[in-house]
Amino acid sequence: MENKKRRGILERLDAGEVVVGDGGYVMQLERRGYVTAGPWTPEAAVEHPEAVRQLHREYLRAGATVIQTFTFYCSEDKLELNGNVTNITGAQINDAACKMAREVADEGGALVAGGVSQTPCYVQSHSETEVKAIFKKQMDDFLKQDIDFLIVEYCEHVEEAVWAVEVLKTSGKTVAATLCIAPQGDMHGVPPGECAVRLVKAGADIVGINCHLDPLTCVETVKLMKEGLEKAGLKAHLMIQPLGFHTPERNIDGYLSLPEFPFALETRAMTRWDIHKYAREAYNAGIRYIGGCCGFEPYHIRAIAEELSAERGFLPPASEKHGLWGAALEMHTKPWVRARARREYWEKLLPASGRPKCPSMATPATE
Amino acid sequence: MENKKRRGILERLDAGEVVVGDGGYVMQLERRGYVTAGPWTPEAAVEHPEAVRQLHREYLRAGATVIQTFTFYCSEDKLELNGNVTNITGAQINDAACKMAREVADEGGALVAGGVSQTPCYVQSHSETEVKAIFKKQMDDFLKQDIDFLIVEYCEHVEEAVWAVEVLKTSGKTVAATLCIAPQGDMHGVPPGECAVRLVKAGADIVGINCHLDPLTCVETVKLMKEGLEKAGLKAHLMIQPLGFHTPERNIDGYLSLPEFPFALETRAMTRWDIHKYAREAYNAGIRYIGGCCGFEPYHIRAIAEELSAERGFLPPASEKHGLWGAALEMHTKPWVRARARREYWEKLLPASGRPKCPSMATPATE
Amino acid sequence: MENKKRRGILERLDAGEVVVGDGGYVMQLERRGYVTAGPWTPEAAVEHPEAVRQLHREYLRAGATVIQTFTFYCSEDKLELNGNVTNITGAQINDAACKMAREVADEGGALVAGGVSQTPCYVQSHSETEVKAIFKKQMDDFLKQDIDFLIVEYCEHVEEAVWAVEVLKTSGKTVAATLCIAPQGDMHGVPPGECAVRLVKAGADIVGINCHLDPLTCVETVKLMKEGLEKAGLKAHLMIQPLGFHTPERNIDGYLSLPEFPFALETRAMTRWDIHKYAREAYNAGIRYIGGCCGFEPYHIRAIAEELSAERGFLPPASEKHGLWGAALEMHTKPWVRARARREYWEKLLPASGRPKCPSMATPATE
Amino acid sequence: MENKKRRGILERLDAGEVVVGDGGYVMQLERRGYVTAGPWTPEAAVEHPEAVRQLHREYLRAGATVIQTFTFYCSEDKLELNGNVTNITGAQINDAACKMAREVADEGGALVAGGVSQTPCYVQSHSETEVKAIFKKQMDDFLKQDIDFLIVEYCEHVEEAVWAVEVLKTSGKTVAATLCIAPQGDMHGVPPGECAVRLVKAGADIVGINCHLDPLTCVETVKLMKEGLEKAGLKAHLMIQPLGFHTPERNIDGYLSLPEFPFALETRAMTRWDIHKYAREAYNAGIRYIGGCCGFEPYHIRAIAEELSAERGFLPPASEKHGLWGAALEMHTKPWVRARARREYWEKLLPASGRPKCPSMATPATE
Repeated sequence: MENKKRRGILERLDAGEVVVGDGGYVMQLERRGYVTAGPWTPEAAVEHPEAVRQLHREYLRAGATVIQTFTFYCSEDKLELNGNVTNITGAQINDAACKMAREVADEGGALVAGGVSQTPCYVQSHSETEVKAIFKKQMDDFLKQDIDFLIVEYCEHVEEAVWAVEVLKTSGKTVAATLCIAPQGDMHGVPPGECAVRLVKAGADIVGINCHLDPLTCVETVKLMKEGLEKAGLKAHLMIQPLGFHTPERNIDGYLSLPEFPFALETRAMTRWDIHKYAREAYNAGIRYIGGCCGFEPYHIRAIAEELSAERGFLPPASEKHGLWGAALEMHTKPWVRARARREYWEKLLPASGRPKCPSMATPATE
Repeated sequence: MENKKRRGILERLDAGEVVVGDGGYVMQLERRGYVTAGPWTPEAAVEHPEAVRQLHREYLRAGATVIQTFTFYCSEDKLELNGNVTNITGAQINDAACKMAREVADEGGALVAGGVSQTPCYVQSHSETEVKAIFKKQMDDFLKQDIDFLIVEYCEHVEEAVWAVEVLKTSGKTVAATLCIAPQGDMHGVPPGECAVRLVKAGADIVGINCHLDPLTCVETVKLMKEGLEKAGLKAHLMIQPLGFHTPERNIDGYLSLPEFPFALETRAMTRWDIHKYAREAYNAGIRYIGGCCGFEPYHIRAIAEELSAERGFLPPASEKHGLWGAALEMHTKPWVRARARREYWEKLLPASGRPKCPSMATPATE
Repeated sequence: MENKKRRGILERLDAGEVVVGDGGYVMQLERRGYVTAGPWTPEAAVEHPEAVRQLHREYLRAGATVIQTFTFYCSEDKLELNGNVTNITGAQINDAACKMAREVADEGGALVAGGVSQTPCYVQSHSETEVKAIFKKQMDDFLKQDIDFLIVEYCEHVEEAVWAVEVLKTSGKTVAATLCIAPQGDMHGVPPGECAVRLVKAGADIVGINCHLDPLTCVETVKLMKEGLEKAGLKAHLMIQPLGFHTPERNIDGYLSLPEFPFALETRAMTRWDIHKYAREAYNAGIRYIGGCCGFEPYHIRAIAEELSAERGFLPPASEKHGLWGAALEMHTKPWVRARARREYWEKLLPASGRPKCPSMATPATE
Repeated sequence: MENKKRRGILERLDAGEVVVGDGGYVMQLERRGYVTAGPWTPEAAVEHPEAVRQLHREYLRAGATVIQTFTFYCSEDKLELNGNVTNITGAQINDAACKMAREVADEGGALVAGGVSQTPCYVQSHSETEVKAIFKKQMDDFLKQDIDFLIVEYCEHVEEAVWAVEVLKTSGKTVAATLCIAPQGDMHGVPPGECAVRLVKAGADIVGINCHLDPLTCVETVKLMKEGLEKAGLKAHLMIQPLGFHTPERNIDGYLSLPEFPFALETRAMTRWDIHKYAREAYNAGIRYIGGCCGFEPYHIRAIAEELSAERGFLPPASEKHGLWGAALEMHTKPWVRARARREYWEKLLPASGRPKCPSMATPATE
């Protein structure tokens, strides 16, 4: 059902191509001054389109194959919660976000994915009818625009994700589904392998993990999904969009319960070299849709594209401003910095926190 | 000499107002994909104006009183070094950067400062004539545009800064001068107090410190400058634009010689709460021009503006998307995150690095 | 078979009593100057009996119910290896060690356990006949003396421990057996539950874990042993003598492959408060023979005895010189130290390493 | 005035010999179960002489040239404070401690130093007459025994140390004086250089620093004392007996105000390799009486003796059980441990704390 002029997401994945996803929006736009931490809603798509458009462009330039619409938490029940967004409707945001994503994606031949995410309604009502109605409404907004495929993301309960997939499949579009769960399983205790099976049986073409935990932990969870699918004799493409933060605690509810969430996560941020390692691990695990979520900035996406440039056959535009593995440091004025213009230096480096009074791991709020 | 319609920088400082500076450009734009680490030159002003303009806007929105032209390292000798920038002239960059800074500054009644920085020529030739000619050329570019005052920044040797001040003062504009030095003194061993005296005697109206070391260290260095001026019976306004990274090593050449420079500084990044503390300390030290340098992002500038909102009498536009001290977390879905919607929580938090195999302090390359 | 005047180890355990083991010998005597790190052999029992006797006394005074003979690695094949001990025979050491342990134990009504440990022969020859002959020889030395029971300890392979148990059971004495393995299993991959089953079937009356990993990890491994026994319908008493060092890496070969072994383990040393927590966890897991191994010093054993003083009904002699939970600090000269004379302070304290350039976790040599 | 058969302390120092001091007593005997933390009084000399004698022997065996009497805080006013020691007099302790120190020292040709330390009386009464009477009484006890010289140690106020020196000099014995102060100066703000001058003018033959801060900090303070003496044209031998704990906070009152004092200092403990570095630094600073205080155990003293074995011309007895720089690890059973039998490995190692939830530096209670 995708635009005929563009090679669709499944066409690419079926051909064995590496699809690079984009990075985080709400957390990066919070730092840029356009999103409120707490509700995390995407009204900036209407209020400050130039800011959203610029971030889309940066991800495109960094090598993203897919631009996701800035429609996180954009269900009416979420927008209205606590009077958070009162003067702009979900339909307005969805409309603006789809147009903007399309505009930028077309600048670089990228695909547009319309994204839906968990609803407050699910936990409050646990009503399949109500939750499905919410997903249907947002999907209908998307279908008025020129989008290529759909993503269900950031569900903590596989049941809600299954409901969403069932709705989105009625569009005839390709549907991807990612859960924000740990290797321990979803919030009802369903293990990742079983989650994957349920999602694929519901119709998901691509399944995987996003947010909540760090890249290597999420790779491990996707591997468990893969094993589950193999045992069940099912097939699907694999996708990953993890946090750009280190979460060695590996607790079941991830960064949400770490003491640093959301205003002191800086020190956990991944370097570009951490991302190289992640991209390789994800690739080796058979995952071919590789992107990021909260904590990923444009240079992290570029690091995925650079690590996998041989497999993809090209470097992204933003690599014009980046010597591979620090090569451009050869132009630095200090000799000891020039000595860092090599892969081995950065791969081996164990960066200091600069915070001698701080620990290296935390006790999650829920432990 | 400043535009009559605008209240000038000295007018504001003389009146005791708090002037909020903007944050870092080259490092933030490197992460966004527009600047090359190593040469760190500002050709993006011509190549990708939309990216520079957006960052200017974010700083303005975050509360900056001053927008500095994106002209760092924009001297011909630097641009030509190693064939770094070959198809764009310094004049073109200066021209584009000034126009763009003015455009954005006018959206919020801000001032524009034209910035010059250390030249490769100084270390290579140590020729006063040659170095002054370079500063003169860049100044002449600025004077063709509508800028409000001038900043000499990022000099490691007070002698070069003095030469720059002497040139810039011929413009009739207000001149600010910041050195990137440690409390130990400049690279020739001149202590901060003596540096300040030389700069003021050369004509600087505002003196202070930028880059290389963390906020509290820079506050200490500015205090030493202040003491030097007081002992010499001189007067000048004080300014500070430190790193947004923790550098507890406090080594003389700062972050340049830390192992993490420039591609693994993430973990040293300051939280917004670190910046609140810094802004207060700087204010208490009598500094009234308070901004940031490398590592500062828009939300860090907003934190300065929020900490000093009572003194300034207003909050910046970006605070619409930020509950003070985390207040908007009251709308979060998880009860333990809602419990963090208070100042005491964030002030006391000692954030974990998430990197148990990494140390908290490093050995500088030059030790 | 135990001395009639003394209540035997099984009699005590069968009655539900808490038996406190002693702590480490070789590593503590290395620090005192009497044992060589590397071979770790116990010739000090002959060469410097006053030093060994004093350490026995300190453990007795700290509350130990059992004094183990200082006969670690005291098999002829180990002593002769690399020409390590040439002028003293294993029989001489065993003889001296048994007499000395008895002498001190009798000062406080304690029991004496004769200990055997893994042999180089096992790995080199893998000959059941040869290995059993070595255990038989050491046992025969013990049986000439007045010892109460026997311990097989520090085996990395359950098979070797089973052979030892089979030999030692021929003595008619009670036999305890502890492996130095991780929750992952022994060096042949046999899981802890299965190890326990094999040991009990071979005749061990008491089974458990010693050395190699930290207390809470070892408690977890003993729990797995317990589960294995329960599933197999077997019964045995449980015993634990873990490291007195933090090993959060939890790698299969434990502290031997950590970079700090054996000369930089200081920073991993447990505080007395860590031991309180351990003693309680071990007790809660149903373990009733609770002691320590390398890294345990007399004050750590006292901490076990203090934590379990209510269960045991008495405090050890060394508690005369120790206010419970720091109570004696009320006599300190500094007011802020007096404020630490309370349990809550020490239980909550997260002690600083004092080493800002060091990490908190290491990469084991075998990873 | 020293025993004619023995070469006295000044004779040795005047000849340029390295004198190795002994290590800490109260803190080590606390861990062995014989001293109460809080009052820290030395009644164990009477109650458990075998424990004190054993520790003396370990220090002698580790290479100590001097055995200090176990008479810390052994003034009547301190013993009686809070009813701490009620059934044993100071005279009894002094008598037993001197006899025992002599007995052990004679086993290895070592010298005996009688030690006095700060009195509660000084802070409470500030009466020169009363304080001097206390020192006189303890000195009179010492003079009834065969001791070689006297040490005033652990004074926080140079004034009290001067009073003590003035009293002890009346004995005709050599007098050493060490303060427990930071580079910032004594508790009245007297800088180290001035402290040294006052002590030497009062008659001290040897001056220096003990306790409270880590070795490298104490070396720095002794250097300041040396500079003070040189400026004043005075001469004295230099002495140092620092903590065996890392105290990077370098706060004026040292470890007393660190949160870990006294029951969680384990993680700050120095390795033997830290001590090698210290011994070399102290030697290079011109200090020739080099020992340790709290936190030093016998193997730390051995490390001093090993580092300076070329200068001294011999290794201590305990080195029989210690391959230099880990050489005996060549006999270890694991290949990766054998690979550690070399100096470079241990010199470069940055040991992990094993405590990912703990920081590396603390905030002192008095800051």
